[in-house]
Amino acid sequence: MKIAVLGGDGFCGWPAALHLSDLGHDVVIVDNLSRRGIDEELGAESLTPIASVEDRLAGWEEVGGRPMTFVRLDLAQDYPGLVAFLREHTPDAVVHFAEQRSAPYSMKSPGHKRYTVENNTGATHNLLCALVETGLDVHLVHLGTMGVYGYGTAGMAIPEGYLDVEIAADDGSRVEQQILYPSNPGSIYHMTKVLDQQLFAYYAKNDALRITDLHQGIVWGTHTDQTLRDERLINRFDYDGDYGTVLNRFLMQAAVGYPLTVHGTGGQTRAFIHIRDMVRCVQIALENPPATGDRVKIFNQMTQTHRVRDLAELVARISDGEVELVPNPRHEAPENELHVHNETFLDLGLEPTLLEEGLLMEIEDVARRYADRADLEKIPCTSTWTRQQQPGVPASRAAVGAAERTA
Amino acid sequence: MKIAVLGGDGFCGWPAALHLSDLGHDVVIVDNLSRRGIDEELGAESLTPIASVEDRLAGWEEVGGRPMTFVRLDLAQDYPGLVAFLREHTPDAVVHFAEQRSAPYSMKSPGHKRYTVENNTGATHNLLCALVETGLDVHLVHLGTMGVYGYGTAGMAIPEGYLDVEIAADDGSRVEQQILYPSNPGSIYHMTKVLDQQLFAYYAKNDALRITDLHQGIVWGTHTDQTLRDERLINRFDYDGDYGTVLNRFLMQAAVGYPLTVHGTGGQTRAFIHIRDMVRCVQIALENPPATGDRVKIFNQMTQTHRVRDLAELVARISDGEVELVPNPRHEAPENELHVHNETFLDLGLEPTLLEEGLLMEIEDVARRYADRADLEKIPCTSTWTRQQQPGVPASRAAVGAAERTA
Repeated sequence: MKIAVLGGDGFCGWPAALHLSDLGHDVVIVDNLSRRGIDEELGAESLTPIASVEDRLAGWEEVGGRPMTFVRLDLAQDYPGLVAFLREHTPDAVVHFAEQRSAPYSMKSPGHKRYTVENNTGATHNLLCALVETGLDVHLVHLGTMGVYGYGTAGMAIPEGYLDVEIAADDGSRVEQQILYPSNPGSIYHMTKVLDQQLFAYYAKNDALRITDLHQGIVWGTHTDQTLRDERLINRFDYDGDYGTVLNRFLMQAAVGYPLTVHGTGGQTRAFIHIRDMVRCVQIALENPPATGDRVKIFNQMTQTHRVRDLAELVARISDGEVELVPNPRHEAPENELHVHNETFLDLGLEPTLLEEGLLMEIEDVARRYADRADLEKIPCTSTWTRQQQPGVPASRAAVGAAERTA
Repeated sequence: MKIAVLGGDGFCGWPAALHLSDLGHDVVIVDNLSRRGIDEELGAESLTPIASVEDRLAGWEEVGGRPMTFVRLDLAQDYPGLVAFLREHTPDAVVHFAEQRSAPYSMKSPGHKRYTVENNTGATHNLLCALVETGLDVHLVHLGTMGVYGYGTAGMAIPEGYLDVEIAADDGSRVEQQILYPSNPGSIYHMTKVLDQQLFAYYAKNDALRITDLHQGIVWGTHTDQTLRDERLINRFDYDGDYGTVLNRFLMQAAVGYPLTVHGTGGQTRAFIHIRDMVRCVQIALENPPATGDRVKIFNQMTQTHRVRDLAELVARISDGEVELVPNPRHEAPENELHVHNETFLDLGLEPTLLEEGLLMEIEDVARRYADRADLEKIPCTSTWTRQQQPGVPASRAAVGAAERTA
């Protein structure tokens, strides 16, 4: 298969590109290198020393990997370039990772909110528009997020994208329908994935585009089989307050003997998946495309749920660290249950990597190994999350904003 | 009240601005004049001779109207200008009409699709972001569309924005929830209003913005009490295939003795509202704002539903014209029922103008009066609607695209 991996230089895109190449597919990586630019902006960098794209591709060929090509392109800004790229490469499938993916980054300032909306919505809509314009028969696989669902539902496990509901008809009878799961995003970043989902539903219906949307949990882990083959192939490990996931920040804090900072009570439950399972899921999704005319196929791409404070305690126990509670910048319920259906991937052969199995390796082979590269001041998350947390907002409004809402 | 009318030079914005000014509010009009620019692009113009903004405002003062000011600003492109505007004018309310509002125009080409998404999503998100950044306590009233609902539901009247559903919990019990009505837009334009609705839900929840979304039907009628006071105050009357609503095209065709062209079987049922009722609805919405912390308040802004072929026959009967069936460019059900709840506005005092009362005046005082200005070649709608209608798409895919889907 000819596969274009959009955002193929990023944390998920790069190991996915390597995995697909290793399976024998012809892979072309498209990226505008914005993630590296944001490192510069934030004065942060990956704990692991990541090589340039050129060195990554050369390294892959030297270890016997199938050659991949790289095209530098900004999907949101260069629509003619995108159309020309598709016409030249005529991919069978496009895997779309090319979005700004940090919730805290998306909340830092009006400029960051606007960038995230314009970049993510622009990239996705340009891609959809270009697929219609070129008339290519492409399977589009998009990396979405579990965060479109919101957290905590009325005593039910979250289904894979679509929800069965009953509605009262005017004649008093009950009508059963299956609807796109009502969204409840917790940040501007997550909201852009809600917008994506609406765009996908429209283009699948109106233009019969074949689309799979992967509602992914929080990815943990750094290495895949392929990234371990050469130091130049190593993947990113972000631990800063914006791009570091909760688990990576704990690992980093543990590695350097810093207290593990938990937001609020740490009662938030989240969905997780190991990066090795992520690349397998992308493979499985590509091997099981929707038919032309189908609605968007949605998979929940996660394998385990964990409560944040349990994670912190687990990491602390393994590493002899301690846990510290700090105020939560997010506007969210302090505690939530989370049950998620993920049978589609399991039925298609996914064998989950469990947290208990992989955590020690992450601490020893990644966090401790590169600990001397860490900048500890980057670990705390400093983004404010709502208008009510801004300086100068009257207390009465702050109180309203802080009150819990159950939408 | 200090009210900013965004898009206040347009078909709905201008009469709404006049009406609010006439009520004694301080009105400032913001517009980038894009609608006039699109007239140039399409080589079309309003049947009624519309004056420049300057002449409109001068005319309004000369007939004793409260002076209004005009600020030329592109909301989607000039975020710093928008923030500066809000800080300078500190409006109590903002009425947001500033979006590309034609479904056929939004489908004309990839460029038109992308413009509509970028302009509408950009304008709405910039506005929301600016309201948070400035910290102003503004009531935002947005002109949405009935088209977010899609047409035809399972034997039930469309509620005002929110739908009661029952969901099966994991323990077998049934849980009642009220959700945002599942959207099913029929064009890129309508889809942008779906994106708007997701943006509003997020900002109301996260930042406690006070937002009212008016899900409007097709507006008909040209004059309001205020636009009749001076020829310089006259409103637009669009009859071209892109911006002319179905009713205006019928009126125009009737006035010039052209057959009334009905798409498909004309079995599509649509919701309508007279422009005098539209301006009253905006007034009522402004007088009944949501409280801080409320979810988005959604009103269905329509007064009657009509089947398109019934409309055509009604106009033909009044005008001695005839009806002609032509192929439908839209991907939609050929026939649909439509029942809509609109009790909120009725309970708040709206007295609907019925089609049967106003149609003759439209034919005589507008369509026939200005018929010599008409360009008959502009009446047909020529936008193709789906990928399957594009030249060069294989017939097998066209068949899939043409098949009816009930989402």
